[in-house]
Amino acid sequence: MADPAGAIDALATMNQLLEQTIPRAHQMGVTFAELREGYVRAAVPFEGNGNHFGVVYAGVIFTLAEVLGGALHYATFDVSTHYPVVRSMNIEFLAPGKGPLSASASLDGTEIARIRTAAANGKVPFELVAEVVGEDGTLVARTRGDYQIRPYGT
Amino acid sequence: MADPAGAIDALATMNQLLEQTIPRAHQMGVTFAELREGYVRAAVPFEGNGNHFGVVYAGVIFTLAEVLGGALHYATFDVSTHYPVVRSMNIEFLAPGKGPLSASASLDGTEIARIRTAAANGKVPFELVAEVVGEDGTLVARTRGDYQIRPYGT
Repeated sequence: MADPAGAIDALATMNQLLEQTIPRAHQMGVTFAELREGYVRAAVPFEGNGNHFGVVYAGVIFTLAEVLGGALHYATFDVSTHYPVVRSMNIEFLAPGKGPLSASASLDGTEIARIRTAAANGKVPFELVAEVVGEDGTLVARTRGDYQIRPYGT
Repeated sequence: MADPAGAIDALATMNQLLEQTIPRAHQMGVTFAELREGYVRAAVPFEGNGNHFGVVYAGVIFTLAEVLGGALHYATFDVSTHYPVVRSMNIEFLAPGKGPLSASASLDGTEIARIRTAAANGKVPFELVAEVVGEDGTLVARTRGDYQIRPYGT
């Protein structure tokens, strides 16, 4: 398997970090599947995550989308100086999740540059939109999260 | 212990239902603490639900607030004819959750009457605002959920 820019190691590291930092997400089976500057994708199995309607429970879908922010921060910004927090999130449930789900989010180059520049002066808010899809591509949920990256010590 | 209107049995039943219907929420330790027509309160322990910042993970707070809708439906509307679904939810994280958390939501009599009347004719949307607080009363999060009750078969 090709490994441009050490992407596989970053992914393995991020999955270890998830297990250590958010045990409940790890317990759900959430894993990062793709990770590079400005882009992250995570996945979750159906097993153990269903509800009485036979679909993936809302709180699992929320978690799958929410963890993207931290991973994107890790892959894109300076983790030695700044940490990410989620301030608020809106989640729309658009279709039932009837099997394994995948969620992805991205920031484009212009937005990354804006955040990096502003981060030198303190907290920087940014919005992250994530889409949660089923194996057949069905759009199951969309989230719009208000995140901040903050310098350590603030 | 007094048990006006069989409230304790309703609570025990609802907690059994949660375990069966949303295993992930049960696994987090979410339990219903108060339940009556138009009012519900649930609680979650800190243990096992923290993240790397030493505060309750966002996905757990979301779940704690989200389950209120189903329980309120159970305690307030006709479960033999209608079921509740969550269409979208906004969650604001207002303060870190540094210990056990409690979340409550209510519908007033006018709103309950409106929903009951409208339910005879099909799906009825309603909004449920929940507040998540710490043991000292600190407001940790507020959610605003768009729910529907739907007649079975729709």
